[in-house]
Amino acid sequence: MASPEIEQKLAPLRAAVKEYGDIVRKLKAEGGAKVDIDKAVIELKARKRILEEAELSLAPPDAAFDRVKLEDLLKRRFFYDQSFAIYGGVTGLYDFGPMGCAMKANLIQLWRRHFVLEEGMLEVGCSMLTPEPVLKASGHVDRFSDWMVKDLKTGECFRADHLIKNHIEKLLRDKKTPAKMRDEFMDVLAKLDGMDNKDMHSVITKYGFKSPITGNDLTEPIAFNLMFPTVIGPTGEFKAYLRPETAQGIFVNFKRLLEFNQGKLPFVAAQIGHAFRNEISPRQGLIRVREFEMCEIEHFVDPNNKQHPKFPKVRDYKVLLFSACNQMDGKSAQETTIGDAVGEKIIANETLGYYMARVHQFLIKVGIDPNKLRFRQHLSNEMAHYACDCWDAEVYTSYGWIECVGNADRSCYDLQQHYKATGVKLTGEKKLPEPKTVNVVEAIPNKSVIGKAFKGDAKLIIGALSSMEEAEVKSLEEKLAKSGLVILYFSGQYLFCLVHVEEITPSVIEPSFGVGRIMYAILEHAFREREGDEQRTFLALLPQIAPIKCSILPISANVRLLAVMRKNNYFFKDDSAGSIGRRYARTDEIGIPFGITVDFESEVEPWTVTLRYALTMEQVRLNVSTNFSFIARKKMRN
Amino acid sequence: MASPEIEQKLAPLRAAVKEYGDIVRKLKAEGGAKVDIDKAVIELKARKRILEEAELSLAPPDAAFDRVKLEDLLKRRFFYDQSFAIYGGVTGLYDFGPMGCAMKANLIQLWRRHFVLEEGMLEVGCSMLTPEPVLKASGHVDRFSDWMVKDLKTGECFRADHLIKNHIEKLLRDKKTPAKMRDEFMDVLAKLDGMDNKDMHSVITKYGFKSPITGNDLTEPIAFNLMFPTVIGPTGEFKAYLRPETAQGIFVNFKRLLEFNQGKLPFVAAQIGHAFRNEISPRQGLIRVREFEMCEIEHFVDPNNKQHPKFPKVRDYKVLLFSACNQMDGKSAQETTIGDAVGEKIIANETLGYYMARVHQFLIKVGIDPNKLRFRQHLSNEMAHYACDCWDAEVYTSYGWIECVGNADRSCYDLQQHYKATGVKLTGEKKLPEPKTVNVVEAIPNKSVIGKAFKGDAKLIIGALSSMEEAEVKSLEEKLAKSGLVILYFSGQYLFCLVHVEEITPSVIEPSFGVGRIMYAILEHAFREREGDEQRTFLALLPQIAPIKCSILPISANVRLLAVMRKNNYFFKDDSAGSIGRRYARTDEIGIPFGITVDFESEVEPWTVTLRYALTMEQVRLNVSTNFSFIARKKMRN
Repeated sequence: MASPEIEQKLAPLRAAVKEYGDIVRKLKAEGGAKVDIDKAVIELKARKRILEEAELSLAPPDAAFDRVKLEDLLKRRFFYDQSFAIYGGVTGLYDFGPMGCAMKANLIQLWRRHFVLEEGMLEVGCSMLTPEPVLKASGHVDRFSDWMVKDLKTGECFRADHLIKNHIEKLLRDKKTPAKMRDEFMDVLAKLDGMDNKDMHSVITKYGFKSPITGNDLTEPIAFNLMFPTVIGPTGEFKAYLRPETAQGIFVNFKRLLEFNQGKLPFVAAQIGHAFRNEISPRQGLIRVREFEMCEIEHFVDPNNKQHPKFPKVRDYKVLLFSACNQMDGKSAQETTIGDAVGEKIIANETLGYYMARVHQFLIKVGIDPNKLRFRQHLSNEMAHYACDCWDAEVYTSYGWIECVGNADRSCYDLQQHYKATGVKLTGEKKLPEPKTVNVVEAIPNKSVIGKAFKGDAKLIIGALSSMEEAEVKSLEEKLAKSGLVILYFSGQYLFCLVHVEEITPSVIEPSFGVGRIMYAILEHAFREREGDEQRTFLALLPQIAPIKCSILPISANVRLLAVMRKNNYFFKDDSAGSIGRRYARTDEIGIPFGITVDFESEVEPWTVTLRYALTMEQVRLNVSTNFSFIARKKMRN
Repeated sequence: MASPEIEQKLAPLRAAVKEYGDIVRKLKAEGGAKVDIDKAVIELKARKRILEEAELSLAPPDAAFDRVKLEDLLKRRFFYDQSFAIYGGVTGLYDFGPMGCAMKANLIQLWRRHFVLEEGMLEVGCSMLTPEPVLKASGHVDRFSDWMVKDLKTGECFRADHLIKNHIEKLLRDKKTPAKMRDEFMDVLAKLDGMDNKDMHSVITKYGFKSPITGNDLTEPIAFNLMFPTVIGPTGEFKAYLRPETAQGIFVNFKRLLEFNQGKLPFVAAQIGHAFRNEISPRQGLIRVREFEMCEIEHFVDPNNKQHPKFPKVRDYKVLLFSACNQMDGKSAQETTIGDAVGEKIIANETLGYYMARVHQFLIKVGIDPNKLRFRQHLSNEMAHYACDCWDAEVYTSYGWIECVGNADRSCYDLQQHYKATGVKLTGEKKLPEPKTVNVVEAIPNKSVIGKAFKGDAKLIIGALSSMEEAEVKSLEEKLAKSGLVILYFSGQYLFCLVHVEEITPSVIEPSFGVGRIMYAILEHAFREREGDEQRTFLALLPQIAPIKCSILPISANVRLLAVMRKNNYFFKDDSAGSIGRRYARTDEIGIPFGITVDFESEVEPWTVTLRYALTMEQVRLNVSTNFSFIARKKMRN
């Protein structure tokens, strides 16, 4: 919560949000027309946005942080940098250098331990190349797109919402823009997120926005699919895409995984891998890229029982929740226990709540500042078409609150879609508390009639009839009856069966992690300047995440001693020239948390060295026979 | 070496190879015409192939191995399986299930430890999406293709060499094919590898080969590029490909890596990542796929000094070498020390030899049978356009000898190509033994003349003149002189400089690992049947590679005891139903090397359990307080 002075300034904005929150709620309760609800939601979101911006601008600035300096460090010490720079570079593509690569590997290894191993998940690795029908079924071919406008003469493309935003921001900076126009523009900006192609087109024509490069007229907004297209094989006819998420690979393997789990539900699958999004004009460094690594978990569970056996372990775990309800009331995020949030139905179910706690624990473990971490619930119209509840783990950075982990209850949407597309049942069995009797209709083939009529093909026809589903039998019977045909070949027979299990399509709870975004947020939260020396910047990375755990700075060259020290792999020997201070600065910059200095005093038996902790610059003298492996595991807060 | 009886049978075939090996050598020595050499090489390779097939057919069969059974096991226990099977599947794409995924992660982790950490390599992670100009420079756009023929009516595509092979093999099985034709066909088969499009076209027309599916006529062989095409961004004009190897990502980052290494050569970069090849008709499981993981090392070294400081460590290491010379003489592979092979110039240089030894050590460490491992040298016409020496680590499997690791000296081809394409110098500096004096030509701008003539643009022109290279200055001077123009604006000035360093374009030594191929070879070499029970198959995986190190089979449910046992992550609890024998069989099948059984005897203090070693089925009773972590590290041979 902000100070009372700030809260006083925010109060009218909070009230303005709540006014429309209440209107939306009322319309929904009374079953109002969709168009009215949609309109009210756009106004609600516009007011929310104004509130959020006011909150950010009134918050005390993060004095220590200077993004330009961080970016310079990351580039200079090759954590990551733009791909193909010698060829002019490609926006939205990044190469990870030795430091970034090691840090990413540590992050992923910790993720695997925290989730896959501790929770006994089934990890899979699926193909990135994905045939079109799979992504047609998942909804990506039809719905995974952004609106784009084109320069009518040059064909140059712009993302429609970005173009409007940039034009308006320029006009707002222009002192000649009259006050009335300013209000209109603020209103457009606030509503931009909720606009469709028609809304954006009318904004562009109303204000006469042109191509920012040529000044030419623009087309109407057209949908641009964000998947990278390709073709498999030589004919050019087998259309495919690079996967936009790793989840679909798990869904199409559902049957194999269920079998691997000996037919038992619930079970959890996970995948670590790359995905691709052909962004129209990516910016913001690692936050919005065209090729990225993600970690996804798909927890398959009985839709009527989403309890989690380990829930008691996280019941009292506290998280900062920004619920849909709070958002509509103009309130801030609130600290709550997971147990209370599930108990009060703020979080939809135990399994979703359990993962939110585990996600929170993980983000803290890898170095996210807990004071800059919240879960924001999607408003109902924000949610993806498949989701029934969704909470984004958002991390506060210099780019604002960014989504790092999406936590969604995808219900049974995906499995049902793939079933519809393939005819392959993607269901599990649930044991009934006691067996029950059900009526089943089966087609009983009239074998002798079929045999005479179809001879060689009879076997095929008998097989097809026998395997018909209940609904098919009924509808075939009806059709034949309606068309006045006599049923010669089969009869529908009604049977009574005792069944012990029920067939269910599982619901899917999905935490989905953006590796690059988490990594960037860690780097921002770890970035420091030495007090009294702003030029000396460094990274206070936790040892578990740091690319290198410890440096060895030899002032004296005691070879035998160095050999003892370097046996272990997380040591990095810096024998570059320069004063010891300069060498410490070099290792601090790349986030090496510990430094061991071998000096002339070390030569005297019993051999000793100096261990320095980068964050505090404290030093301690230790015997060389010390087991230094603790430095890789040490848990400490910056 | 084979038995004397077999060698007797092989002797004439060996002589036949040597005959043409000698002809090729003679032609080369005498500077014969390229067309004659090429012809002789094709005949040489044909004879080599016949010899190799005879060797394989005469070798004692690997009695224990039954590929169908292995494939059944891998599918059933979900090591890996065809991707998108519920959509009909895609050839050449595989999904890794929980067992395959864990095994692959172990393999890659061991690779990282064996190479990246132990050798202090700079690991990078680069983009898979690659702009066309990068792959144009590397030669892949123009040269990375296979010959394909199309059905003239349906447009269906076939790989030309596969089509010819299949047609001929069918005709050879047909008893009506006359003996004379058989000889011709054998000859075509033997020469197929060396054929170009014209050769294959004449075979297809001579024998009237048609589409195997429709019987329609076929087109002439056309080159089909094996890269997957796509476009970046919305305009459709930014052409790109999915990378066909990870190496290019390292080359385009050369400058950043050199800088990271404080400008010092040699240094080594490595990358673990996916690559893609749009095969025309992939078969052979994991051996030939469209999407695969690879590990590549690029060792940048002074082209005039390819010594390696750690070479003494591998000098006496023994490997099986199948040199180009032995291949041309019709001899078998020979065991040699790396030191001798480099000393006798069989292996081109120390660095290449050092890596071959390290590759050999790695393959043995992960479970490749050392008796089924050899290095085969490329014949000069087999080598990629960039390579100057190349040795494939080949592993013997039921598919024959397959290339698992390519070890090439790529010389400075790649860096030079990217320099030509971008104008960005990709060179390092080498300290001269003593400084030397060189003549340098510099353009000295005539500032006052330029200032008066060009006013505002003068600064630009002066800058451009000052930064001109020696050759440019000379050629500009000459051009102006020739055209009779007086040089007003600048004069070329000859300076004498003392230089301490020399600029060099490094050579690149590249070991390149196919992860899927190595994994498949390990699985084949680990596959066993229990003596006396052929139905009971299992995998004798080394603990370091095994997806799970140890199973816990609870017969009695001592909860406290189980909790103690399961703390560690490499344990897998099998509480499925079934007899203890059946449960052992289940865990043996997925290659779990150790099993711990908790039984009724375990309940009595001091608590004890049974540890079983899957390979030998030996059992031993141990106290529960034993530190079981040794099982993950134990080095043992199957």
